Amino acid sequence: MADRPLAGRTVIDLTTALSGPYATLLLAGLGARVIKVENPLTGGDSSRNNSPYVGAGGLTAVRGEGDDMSVSMMLRGRNKQSVTLNLKHPRAREVLAGLVRVADVMVDNYSAGVTDRLGVGYDWAREVNPRIVCTSVSGFGAQGGPGSGKAMDTIVQALSGVMMTAGAPGEPPVRFGLPVGDLVAPLYAVIGTLAAVLQADATGHGQYVDVSMLGALTSLVACEPFDAYEKLGLPSRTGATVPRLAPFGTFPAADGWFALCGPTDAFARGLFAALDRDELGADPRFATRDARVAHAAELHDLLAAWAAERPLASVLDLLARHGVPAAEVRDPVAAVRDPIVLSRGEVVPLAHPRHGRVEDLHGTGVPIRFSGADAALDQPAPALGEHNNEIYGGLLGYSDDDIKSLADDGVI
Amino acid sequence: MADRPLAGRTVIDLTTALSGPYATLLLAGLGARVIKVENPLTGGDSSRNNSPYVGAGGLTAVRGEGDDMSVSMMLRGRNKQSVTLNLKHPRAREVLAGLVRVADVMVDNYSAGVTDRLGVGYDWAREVNPRIVCTSVSGFGAQGGPGSGKAMDTIVQALSGVMMTAGAPGEPPVRFGLPVGDLVAPLYAVIGTLAAVLQADATGHGQYVDVSMLGALTSLVACEPFDAYEKLGLPSRTGATVPRLAPFGTFPAADGWFALCGPTDAFARGLFAALDRDELGADPRFATRDARVAHAAELHDLLAAWAAERPLASVLDLLARHGVPAAEVRDPVAAVRDPIVLSRGEVVPLAHPRHGRVEDLHGTGVPIRFSGADAALDQPAPALGEHNNEIYGGLLGYSDDDIKSLADDGVI
Repeated sequence: MADRPLAGRTVIDLTTALSGPYATLLLAGLGARVIKVENPLTGGDSSRNNSPYVGAGGLTAVRGEGDDMSVSMMLRGRNKQSVTLNLKHPRAREVLAGLVRVADVMVDNYSAGVTDRLGVGYDWAREVNPRIVCTSVSGFGAQGGPGSGKAMDTIVQALSGVMMTAGAPGEPPVRFGLPVGDLVAPLYAVIGTLAAVLQADATGHGQYVDVSMLGALTSLVACEPFDAYEKLGLPSRTGATVPRLAPFGTFPAADGWFALCGPTDAFARGLFAALDRDELGADPRFATRDARVAHAAELHDLLAAWAAERPLASVLDLLARHGVPAAEVRDPVAAVRDPIVLSRGEVVPLAHPRHGRVEDLHGTGVPIRFSGADAALDQPAPALGEHNNEIYGGLLGYSDDDIKSLADDGVI
Repeated sequence: MADRPLAGRTVIDLTTALSGPYATLLLAGLGARVIKVENPLTGGDSSRNNSPYVGAGGLTAVRGEGDDMSVSMMLRGRNKQSVTLNLKHPRAREVLAGLVRVADVMVDNYSAGVTDRLGVGYDWAREVNPRIVCTSVSGFGAQGGPGSGKAMDTIVQALSGVMMTAGAPGEPPVRFGLPVGDLVAPLYAVIGTLAAVLQADATGHGQYVDVSMLGALTSLVACEPFDAYEKLGLPSRTGATVPRLAPFGTFPAADGWFALCGPTDAFARGLFAALDRDELGADPRFATRDARVAHAAELHDLLAAWAAERPLASVLDLLARHGVPAAEVRDPVAAVRDPIVLSRGEVVPLAHPRHGRVEDLHGTGVPIRFSGADAALDQPAPALGEHNNEIYGGLLGYSDDDIKSLADDGVI
């Protein structure tokens, strides 16, 4: 097996829930040693208590006895090591300092200011290890935000404008079931972390990397020139179709939906051929791109009427044969089983640490393929504190008595 | 000014349109020297021909005379240098080899196999420079995909399952106006590139980094355990609300929409206090989380009826005073003007290279703040071939005669 790209790098992971743990999951998949620090008093990462669970008997909505593990933790805990540490205990900082000393990176997703109040913020960490990169993912950034400051995904979606890019003018906002607010910020956090590690390698100095969920998602929204569209009177919401690129949008066949993207002359001619209506290519309403845009509703109605009578498979086959970009609209459960995606490891089967695959469940992989390295999420999630001996004993050199004393005192 | 994290790194940018250029935009914002290689025969990156445009007279839908530049290029070309090079010309490979020799990274977003057919794929590049990291963003990955292989954003959205996470069961799929398929893949491409650069620094060997738009977006969908939900009979689509977290969702006030997230007992009590209905906290329908989930529709109706009569500002103020996470649903044009987001540079004003800010337009920034470095998109986009002399003459050492000969031959 080729080395993983981040082999030899160590990450201290203070994160919980989704946004932070997804950042450290990617770092783990890229080969960093990720040491997940969990609070022994609360049962660790709150994701351990998310329904549903998997145990020996399979999937259940309610946690049973024994070694049931939440699907969230099965997914987000892979390739990580778990140690316990109560950061509010007076002895905890000394233990954490030992970890910081041997680490390249520390990641947290506490609300703004919390690590400083706990005495384990960047100003403290840099004293312990000047090379450390400390990355925070928070709702509104290190200075905090308005209101309660609670930045749940749906709040961030609402503020970012993304809910008003789907649907049609006048319709209610569209909440995405995929928590894009939680999931986009960690991607920037990983980018910032790796960039800062490159800089630390060059300069010998680490730094603080500050990523905001709202800022991350809003910056993604600002990749599209919605404000230029508005000034020109073009809508940011156009529903299922995009008239300025017609024929373009999602349409129903007899037994399922498909997407079609045909903005060019060649694609439009392909569509007319698929409809067995080649003469439409010479029709003044549809002969040029400008004409098709001006008659977008007619063109889309024509396409919809044709498709509505045909099985989806036949629609897709005809469009493919005429070179028109089109594809089935799949639900998430079908999508994560795409054979190309599975073969590339972009989605992978999920396993319980003891019971292996007791259900046909899938989870995110590392969607990056390296020719000279390996990146994968191939180790099941750890139990709470599973690596206390390996990390505190093996890596930091605590004796068995030290570890027992820390456990007895409620530090770990 | 502090150094930028990627100062001293050079990126050869063969990308066009959106997904590839967004990857190199981030690398440029992080401080890499990005040399954008554009085809002189076609007028360069197709984004230069996207309506709308900005010129001396402001924003226009149709390109005028002179130095009008598309908003897309104003946004995506920032902090890049532009050289022309016709990769199909027999003399082009020698010129590109000069660039590859001095570069750390080359990025393309051609369809699978195209760089190899042009003779400038990774196998060629590694011969020129064994340390080079070559990153490709393509629709379905380096081995190509089904059908036409044309992976436009809406096609990728359809296949990834993401369209079926919004809306309610039985409703049509929901196309996002934000091109998430185009925008997520480049984030993974940047992560893969930086990880491979770290590995190249350690080993002296570059590699090929292969990111698929479909794989990237599907892997993001697979961060949520939709297949576990389905096995338990829980819907992946729940529309505007999330009954299993009630009170939770988006709701209309008298003059605008807001999102509210109140899954805990404390938040629910806050909501009842905001409604001036403290007694609901003792109501058996709403007293516990399980009860609220069982009576989610009633609870949401109650909330909606209360809010519908009140101005949005008053609703948000009352909720904030009672500690209930809630926020206005904004449209993209308002969202990109959020003062916190602007102050952090996550969104920045857009300027025309000659005319500066002739319209109040905004574009994406680098949504990562570094304590010991600077990252910003602060240089306007270049004209086509603007840096031919600086790069071919200054960096590669071509004489004026060499450059003239290359231009006369249609190579650059």
